[in-house]
Amino acid sequence: VRIEVLCTGDELLSGATADTNSPYFMDGLLAQGERVSRATIVGDDRDAIARVFGEACARADVVLVCGGLGPTSDDVTVEALAQAMGVPLVEHAATLARLRARFERVGRTFSDNNARQARVPQGAQVVQNPVGTAPMLVLTLGGCTAFVVPGVPDEYRLLVQDEVLPRIAAVGSASGTRNVVRVRLLRTIGLPESHLDAKVRDIARAHPEVGFAFRTVAPENQLKLWVCAPSAEAAERLLEQVAAQCAAALGPHLFGQGEAASLPQVVLTGLEARGHTLAVAESCTGGCLAEALTALPGASKVFWGGVIPYEARLKTAWLKVPAALIDAQGAVSAPVARAMAQAVRASAGSDWGLSTTGYAGPGGGDAREPVGAVYIGLCGPSGTSHERHVFHGDRERVRRFAAFAALDALRRHLG
Amino acid sequence: VRIEVLCTGDELLSGATADTNSPYFMDGLLAQGERVSRATIVGDDRDAIARVFGEACARADVVLVCGGLGPTSDDVTVEALAQAMGVPLVEHAATLARLRARFERVGRTFSDNNARQARVPQGAQVVQNPVGTAPMLVLTLGGCTAFVVPGVPDEYRLLVQDEVLPRIAAVGSASGTRNVVRVRLLRTIGLPESHLDAKVRDIARAHPEVGFAFRTVAPENQLKLWVCAPSAEAAERLLEQVAAQCAAALGPHLFGQGEAASLPQVVLTGLEARGHTLAVAESCTGGCLAEALTALPGASKVFWGGVIPYEARLKTAWLKVPAALIDAQGAVSAPVARAMAQAVRASAGSDWGLSTTGYAGPGGGDAREPVGAVYIGLCGPSGTSHERHVFHGDRERVRRFAAFAALDALRRHLG
Repeated sequence: VRIEVLCTGDELLSGATADTNSPYFMDGLLAQGERVSRATIVGDDRDAIARVFGEACARADVVLVCGGLGPTSDDVTVEALAQAMGVPLVEHAATLARLRARFERVGRTFSDNNARQARVPQGAQVVQNPVGTAPMLVLTLGGCTAFVVPGVPDEYRLLVQDEVLPRIAAVGSASGTRNVVRVRLLRTIGLPESHLDAKVRDIARAHPEVGFAFRTVAPENQLKLWVCAPSAEAAERLLEQVAAQCAAALGPHLFGQGEAASLPQVVLTGLEARGHTLAVAESCTGGCLAEALTALPGASKVFWGGVIPYEARLKTAWLKVPAALIDAQGAVSAPVARAMAQAVRASAGSDWGLSTTGYAGPGGGDAREPVGAVYIGLCGPSGTSHERHVFHGDRERVRRFAAFAALDALRRHLG
Repeated sequence: VRIEVLCTGDELLSGATADTNSPYFMDGLLAQGERVSRATIVGDDRDAIARVFGEACARADVVLVCGGLGPTSDDVTVEALAQAMGVPLVEHAATLARLRARFERVGRTFSDNNARQARVPQGAQVVQNPVGTAPMLVLTLGGCTAFVVPGVPDEYRLLVQDEVLPRIAAVGSASGTRNVVRVRLLRTIGLPESHLDAKVRDIARAHPEVGFAFRTVAPENQLKLWVCAPSAEAAERLLEQVAAQCAAALGPHLFGQGEAASLPQVVLTGLEARGHTLAVAESCTGGCLAEALTALPGASKVFWGGVIPYEARLKTAWLKVPAALIDAQGAVSAPVARAMAQAVRASAGSDWGLSTTGYAGPGGGDAREPVGAVYIGLCGPSGTSHERHVFHGDRERVRRFAAFAALDALRRHLG
């Protein structure tokens, strides 16, 4: 089934609002084994909507039209669709009666503007909207079926879920093209996207029936596998087999599978499985590490606390890092990172201590270390270690990469 | 200037990701008095991209193309554009040299995949990307100018801001169709959107030539004013006058004006102006406060540090909050919040101490306080105070609202 999306609304073109409705529809479609081939956004302009609607119907079997069904004068979608179809607008008596009754029930005045929402292109099938005033419409133009729904997110979601997706599934069944799609997300860190691609290229070549897509959600690089098959069992079996091959190829860079397996979650789960606890000492990450861990429900079981000695003197006052060590080695150095990790572990009484010290920029850096240089210190049951990284980019990026590098160091040690 | 957007990427059509890049571009355009007339999304499909690109260039004066410039095999945008233009891909020597040097500098292997990013449609103008590997391209097709930028948000924003928007402004000046739009963002906290609307309704009625738009970026409620006028001076003068009236109506709920005036930035600036310093003690916010403050360049001048005693016992070990006080009053209580603020101030030697303690959920709560209850403690040069809030919603929302409430308490005390 060839499916397109048409969203209307000046607000979607003026930067005020991103189109977050369509991803909801696309998610539901994917679960039915279907995909959108093109999505178009135009403003509240009757001629533009009519033109795009005609083009989309000429290309697609199904078009989902969203937005511009409200009662105000800038809501012109229904008129535009009628124009594209070459039919007049007619009053839909049942909808008009329903609207009047609804207004009466809540004691509001029914205006001419409100009556506009009962006017539909001649021949339209009307589906009542249980949560709003604008009805959903089902139109046909050429061989294409168009579903027209309001852009209000609550109404959109309910109508897409209950009315649009089942009808598209029926179209798919009738044309015999319906399949099941299953997706697997493999999450890696420390591997540039081009290297990730190279590591799994042979597997992808050997399995042309499996989709491979790469995405960077810095500092992660993700590989999404998907399979379209006649049954869920067949799809899962194939996906499992290919995911296992990819996992072997990716080695320790693979830290988790699935939307829920974020790096902080994997670390938290790993600690909990061992009955271990963690405290952190953050300088350059300034709370990013603690924030990422405590964002997860249940964090308090393993995360005992954090110290952020942002002002240089507090590394000594709060963590007993000797001032002489800082003077001799520099605040951004391996010995200081190690001392911070050891101190916070001892002070909290946790199994692990994890630390960061570095120059997040834009200022900073010294004779020894440039902006972007970060030391990670890790102290655990079997001793102390450290890593040095140099990250590029702005302050936000360096902090984020540093926090993830620290979590990843702990993950590999738990490994 | 007729402007269109073309975004490519399977992930934008499969529900994984909403297109949040385009609103950034649209925002910048609006400030220049321009609007996008159509936005189209297609997948990583060479023929589909080529077709849509050709159509868009036939309609528009400017097309912004985004995505599919990465090094992997599903990145096909550049090939598709060359196909639409009917020109071959050629190797861009300066880009290739730059990429090789970049890889050498960080000690990474340069692969054939990476070399793909140096191949451009014949005749393309190449603009170097200061933060990523894929260069920006400027192409022409018919009378249309196309700007081609990576979809990685950091790279997208930088190139749109520094390279694309100024070039579009130049096109607009040349064609003489330009009107000036000026925008003012008023940022409030502690005021529901409907109350905000009510407070400025009369001002909006008295100024039909000024646009009023409301937006919630929880926990903030924002009011965006905009004016379209023939000259920047006229627009600014009107905007200044109306913004002043709104500011008077909003009173202390208005914490800042403009994109840069985030609440953490306003607090940081306020502290710096007084030569004051701050330390925080976070329980339920678990690092959110410190993270928000240290995200800002120059934070180290006023933010001295933070303590996150997440495990209950560490409130005593790290902040000397008497265990007897916690037992008697509860960890989530006014006396404990006050003691935490006082202790972190004394221990850091800062002018201000700010604390949070509460139940972020989903579990927690006790006989005295429900999930969502948060105490803010504030200790400064003229004494100690506290506030109690009860926030609704999930863990993420409670933490975010609590961190903002703490910052806002300090802002109001700074006056």
